[in-house]
Amino acid sequence: MSGRHSKHDLETTPDDKLLRKLEAKWEDSPTRVLRWHKGLDVRGLDCNSAPGWDGDKDDGGALVAAHAEELSELQERLFADGRSGGSRSVLLVLQGLDTSGKGGIVRHVVGLVDPQGVQHRAFGVPTAEEASHGYLWRIRNALPRPGYIGVFDRSHYEQVLVVRVEGLEPEETWRAHYDEINAFEAEVAAAGTTIVKVALIVSKDEQKARLTERLERPDKYWKYNPGDLTTRARFGDYLDAYQELFEKTSTDVAPWHVVPADKKWYSRLAVTELLLGALRSLDLGWPPADFDVEEQQRLLAET
Amino acid sequence: MSGRHSKHDLETTPDDKLLRKLEAKWEDSPTRVLRWHKGLDVRGLDCNSAPGWDGDKDDGGALVAAHAEELSELQERLFADGRSGGSRSVLLVLQGLDTSGKGGIVRHVVGLVDPQGVQHRAFGVPTAEEASHGYLWRIRNALPRPGYIGVFDRSHYEQVLVVRVEGLEPEETWRAHYDEINAFEAEVAAAGTTIVKVALIVSKDEQKARLTERLERPDKYWKYNPGDLTTRARFGDYLDAYQELFEKTSTDVAPWHVVPADKKWYSRLAVTELLLGALRSLDLGWPPADFDVEEQQRLLAET
Repeated sequence: MSGRHSKHDLETTPDDKLLRKLEAKWEDSPTRVLRWHKGLDVRGLDCNSAPGWDGDKDDGGALVAAHAEELSELQERLFADGRSGGSRSVLLVLQGLDTSGKGGIVRHVVGLVDPQGVQHRAFGVPTAEEASHGYLWRIRNALPRPGYIGVFDRSHYEQVLVVRVEGLEPEETWRAHYDEINAFEAEVAAAGTTIVKVALIVSKDEQKARLTERLERPDKYWKYNPGDLTTRARFGDYLDAYQELFEKTSTDVAPWHVVPADKKWYSRLAVTELLLGALRSLDLGWPPADFDVEEQQRLLAET
Repeated sequence: MSGRHSKHDLETTPDDKLLRKLEAKWEDSPTRVLRWHKGLDVRGLDCNSAPGWDGDKDDGGALVAAHAEELSELQERLFADGRSGGSRSVLLVLQGLDTSGKGGIVRHVVGLVDPQGVQHRAFGVPTAEEASHGYLWRIRNALPRPGYIGVFDRSHYEQVLVVRVEGLEPEETWRAHYDEINAFEAEVAAAGTTIVKVALIVSKDEQKARLTERLERPDKYWKYNPGDLTTRARFGDYLDAYQELFEKTSTDVAPWHVVPADKKWYSRLAVTELLLGALRSLDLGWPPADFDVEEQQRLLAET
């Protein structure tokens, strides 16, 4: 780790100046800017906007690159803490319709940190075994262990999204999930997990452009599924479901962040900053030695 | 993916020329250079050497960087293949004594590809549940699913390393593991997994320097364990165990690669090239569409 040469040094380097200049392009903390709040209607969101960011695409990419080292160091501190008996972890929950860029977030943002410290899980249609349990069973099994960053590509929220829109459960059943999910997340947070919930919101037009590209490029066919059109036909119903989901499950302990996703560079910047904010908030130092350092130095010198 | 602009293009770009110049610094295929062969005695290995590489540290780093894109594209092809019904996967088995750099390989080499396509698992002292099963139980459970690159940080080989050196099983028991492991790996390979076994060999002097650094830097205390000195006291016994392990389990279907690990840049270069070689050997194209592309284009256009 090269954290010794990071912004915590006393001297100011040219890199520090650049970093501060880029950070200043956030008009407010990205966590505050993106957090869902009463009155925010996702159906009226400008998906091509870059809320809170007073810079362009290049600036955004530069800040992600400039924050990579701190992100990586904080992830290592979290990992070290977990290995030393700590109970903290971070869980990034990614939701979004097809083509909203969840995969790109994992590749380009989560990919900035050491894969040893990441527990990634994509949730698709439940397997037979999964379906034989309650919907939170497979979620509980995939929760990050202490020291890890967990990443959920889709999650328990499908139970109030696809299940609702496709009518897979009666309304009274899926409606009960809001409270169940809030109780579950409160329990997870109390056990030491910082939950970062992100909804990537792509516009219907941009989705069309991205699906069209998948059908034009043979190296993207595998990402396309005819069922994507069925989902697309219910685009408005999904937005309704997202809106209610925000209203019912954006809690103090696990708030939602609504990220416009038509500009990939912006959504990647936004999630980098949300993840960094979560790691910074843990305020972890390096674990102290649980052995006598001088004694070990002496013993090692003798070998 | 930007594979469209890779070395497969017809035009030769300056990047291609640099890449070819760097690749030519391998005197022979790294897979051949590093593969264990009869007569190679690990106890006489020059751990500070860079076998087969006619370049310096900067050249090595440049080739890793230049190969990152191809590695990433081939990983995505493997993933696409797995999603499309293919059965192929890759398993990177990393063995090495404390401080040999296994973690650095995961961070810097495995970290070059999309974390979505990686199943990483570190094997420590077996848990109570693991210990209640045979030693291959937890290994089987962690095998990569089709489409994935599995990474084992330590593995079933501990059963003929620490178990042997520390006398945790009678000799006739651990000796039986060589054949069991060969049979197991033959079965895994037959099911579609390309196995890449890498032993990182650090010298006793370099290990001392690395342990000393861990005891001098508070941000590294967490990586140090007084038990490391116990293992270090048996350095020669471990090398004997490695030597026999190579002799007994380097098979055609799952050969060992012996990588001198005193130069971190070299071991990272070597493992990058071994992983790339394994992915190239799969010779995977992009999966064909399993739907009518034109029909889907027409249906999408209507939405």
